[in-house]
Amino acid sequence: MRHTRVKDLLNSTNTLHEVNAKGWVRTFRNNQFIALNDGSTINNIQCVVDFENTSEETLKRITTGAAVSVTGDLVESKGAGQKYEIQVKKLEILGDSDAEKFPMQPKKHSLEFLRENAHLRVRTNAFGAIMRVRSVLSYAVHSYFQQKGFVYVNTPIITGADAEGAGEMFQVTSLPLDNLPKNEEGNIDYKKDFFGKHTNLTVSGQLEGETFAMALGQIYTFGPTFRAENSNTSRHLAEFWMIEPEVAFNNLNDNMDLAEDFIQYVIKYTMEKCADDLKFLEGRLLEEEKSKPQAERSEMALLEKLNFVLENNFKRVSYTEAIDILRDSAPNKKKKFQYIINEWGADLQSEHERYLVEKHFKSPVILFDYPANIKAFYMRLNEDGKTVRAMDILFPGIGEIVGGSQREERFDVLVEKMKVLGIDEEELWWYLDTRRFGSAVHSGFGLGFERLVLFVTGMTNIRDVIPFPRTPQNAEF
Amino acid sequence: MRHTRVKDLLNSTNTLHEVNAKGWVRTFRNNQFIALNDGSTINNIQCVVDFENTSEETLKRITTGAAVSVTGDLVESKGAGQKYEIQVKKLEILGDSDAEKFPMQPKKHSLEFLRENAHLRVRTNAFGAIMRVRSVLSYAVHSYFQQKGFVYVNTPIITGADAEGAGEMFQVTSLPLDNLPKNEEGNIDYKKDFFGKHTNLTVSGQLEGETFAMALGQIYTFGPTFRAENSNTSRHLAEFWMIEPEVAFNNLNDNMDLAEDFIQYVIKYTMEKCADDLKFLEGRLLEEEKSKPQAERSEMALLEKLNFVLENNFKRVSYTEAIDILRDSAPNKKKKFQYIINEWGADLQSEHERYLVEKHFKSPVILFDYPANIKAFYMRLNEDGKTVRAMDILFPGIGEIVGGSQREERFDVLVEKMKVLGIDEEELWWYLDTRRFGSAVHSGFGLGFERLVLFVTGMTNIRDVIPFPRTPQNAEF
Repeated sequence: MRHTRVKDLLNSTNTLHEVNAKGWVRTFRNNQFIALNDGSTINNIQCVVDFENTSEETLKRITTGAAVSVTGDLVESKGAGQKYEIQVKKLEILGDSDAEKFPMQPKKHSLEFLRENAHLRVRTNAFGAIMRVRSVLSYAVHSYFQQKGFVYVNTPIITGADAEGAGEMFQVTSLPLDNLPKNEEGNIDYKKDFFGKHTNLTVSGQLEGETFAMALGQIYTFGPTFRAENSNTSRHLAEFWMIEPEVAFNNLNDNMDLAEDFIQYVIKYTMEKCADDLKFLEGRLLEEEKSKPQAERSEMALLEKLNFVLENNFKRVSYTEAIDILRDSAPNKKKKFQYIINEWGADLQSEHERYLVEKHFKSPVILFDYPANIKAFYMRLNEDGKTVRAMDILFPGIGEIVGGSQREERFDVLVEKMKVLGIDEEELWWYLDTRRFGSAVHSGFGLGFERLVLFVTGMTNIRDVIPFPRTPQNAEF
Repeated sequence: MRHTRVKDLLNSTNTLHEVNAKGWVRTFRNNQFIALNDGSTINNIQCVVDFENTSEETLKRITTGAAVSVTGDLVESKGAGQKYEIQVKKLEILGDSDAEKFPMQPKKHSLEFLRENAHLRVRTNAFGAIMRVRSVLSYAVHSYFQQKGFVYVNTPIITGADAEGAGEMFQVTSLPLDNLPKNEEGNIDYKKDFFGKHTNLTVSGQLEGETFAMALGQIYTFGPTFRAENSNTSRHLAEFWMIEPEVAFNNLNDNMDLAEDFIQYVIKYTMEKCADDLKFLEGRLLEEEKSKPQAERSEMALLEKLNFVLENNFKRVSYTEAIDILRDSAPNKKKKFQYIINEWGADLQSEHERYLVEKHFKSPVILFDYPANIKAFYMRLNEDGKTVRAMDILFPGIGEIVGGSQREERFDVLVEKMKVLGIDEEELWWYLDTRRFGSAVHSGFGLGFERLVLFVTGMTNIRDVIPFPRTPQNAEF
């Protein structure tokens, strides 16, 4: 007899004769009530065991974490909180779980302890919900772009190009480190390495993505990217997933429209598909915040915050306006900022971004037209000669969630900029080809997927929204 | 005025006043007819230039590869082969393309030359089609699993676990190779490396995926995997994308059903969405095969072959039956095989797999129940004590496209097997936890995504179905 998923049993429109469910015991009360979960939903199904006709030995083996198969009728539940339950006729223990040793006890564990047990934390309500939400959000990303005719492009993970300078890179090698081959000059002979050259893990697929956008029109990437930066913060991972759309003929305004529409779509989609999980996560967050002083608690509950993003346009503010606002702000005047904003040209720190988003505008903000010298070489220079067509999207509680720009499409201007910055033209010959042959205005952005998952789940540490986080000194599993 | 995609113009249900299209010139005939492509479809739109009222200078700049914007009326075409064309009223050159220098000339290029220009080959008909098909196939993968309630899991790319032994691994490090830190014993001090240990690029997400399946029930991965193997063949890449579903409570038969249903779904989906591209690729293949001797040509045209896979069940054959068939086969008796099959236990080579699929069964084949000693440690031992519940799916022209198994769910049997093979229990403590706590029957498989793209596009070299192939001595772009 084929088993039925718990989600389908709970969503049944009528009682059913003889069903089979398989899953893991969450709790077992009064020698009678199993709360059974199979991962298909955050909700457990109650299985009522006929304890008088079940052997003592079997009852003892119904422990938290044990895998069981139950067969019986799906009947209306007399208990509160559930419509249906299974009146168990046959129970089989598939796999035991020693109650003393199973690390996921039915009690509250610290997030730190759960991270050390990343292979088991997904058996808890919270992490089951987070991982389902993450999965649905991923699918929403693909759905959005595919519906609009974008082509999904897998840009390379191992790359010989390290010119972008988006961050520190990990080296990839098949050379024996304890016996490195040397060339005549006594340097490491990378000709003997697997790819015949020095290679790294990608920090962004943008440059390769641009070459595809200039042929296919609208493309997006969605893959892992890497930073070898020693940042032990709640917002950084060494390995994270990034979404990078790139669109030929889009200018910066089109780019902002796309980013806003995209973010609203994926949040809306996920709210529709993951209502139960998000409701649970909202409750979890409220509970957690009870221990915080009133001033540090969120002004909005999780679902209210998500709805707010759907219902309000992102505030579009130029860098120059933002500097004026910050310069005149109370924390700047009272020298409460760690970095005081004195003049135009200053790079914005996260304290400034948070002020703009959380205090001043109280909404997601798109900052645009940044000073050229604090942004990357490939961004389109404005006619003023000092700002570039860059944009960052800032979210409450998260900070920067999107960074993008209109790209410099003019060959001469781009080459001149690369020269000034000492970026090797020969290494990026293929990138420059897009400007040599049939160049055109185009734009794109990068969105750090885990930051989006953080926002949607209401979690506060990025290590809790990816299955197996990679951070300094940690690559377990 | 916002431009309209070429695909939408060609699919228009009526003529239109004043439209704008942007794209790249494929050809320019008779100083009058631009074939314009924007990547949204394999089909070009014909743009008729009013050459008598266009300056000589502008006409000269309408060259293959140039980016242009055309505005005019969408009218019924007088020419053959297209329903609509644009009667151009206004033409703007967005980006020139020097006809002498543009590498993608309107003529046939060798696949090798195109690989060296992977950033531009996507501007050809064939590679535009391949990349659109690849994208739609990717989406079909996600659609299939999400509809069935599977959870998408991003297993780690950088891993500290190297016990699986699926193949040679690339090392990932942030240590300075020209100045490696040493410990007291004079060995490389990996405690000083980014993750505090020796790390590699993943060869498979299966083991981590299993831990999630034992909580969420049904999961799948779809991400890059790596092999540092010096295989310069048309079927191997150093970096490729793999799909790995894993399902709790599935046995090997369920696993076969899933794999077959999944493959049929994604092929059907792609045939529906990519009819134009596949028709083009079918024609391309027919053309290419004309230069081959009759005996080497495909027996079926591309679409016929794809339909064959949809309409026929995959033939399920045990390893033992396969050995009998091979032992009695003509090429074995006539010693035409390079490796003669004499007895049960022999590992099958690709010549044997091809014989079974292409000559004997003439259909996709699922081989199952392999000898334990030629398969991985985690596969479920059969009651005969000498075979394991493994399965490989073999496709015509491709060879192995899927490898999977029912997993060994019994703690003691698994640990014993690991001991025999010298696999460190302590390193896989987390994997063994799935068998310590609530173990259950479960199964999964891995499908090499590029091999699927090869099959669906009818291409013959795997380097031609991924945007930027990574192979020995090649990590350009």
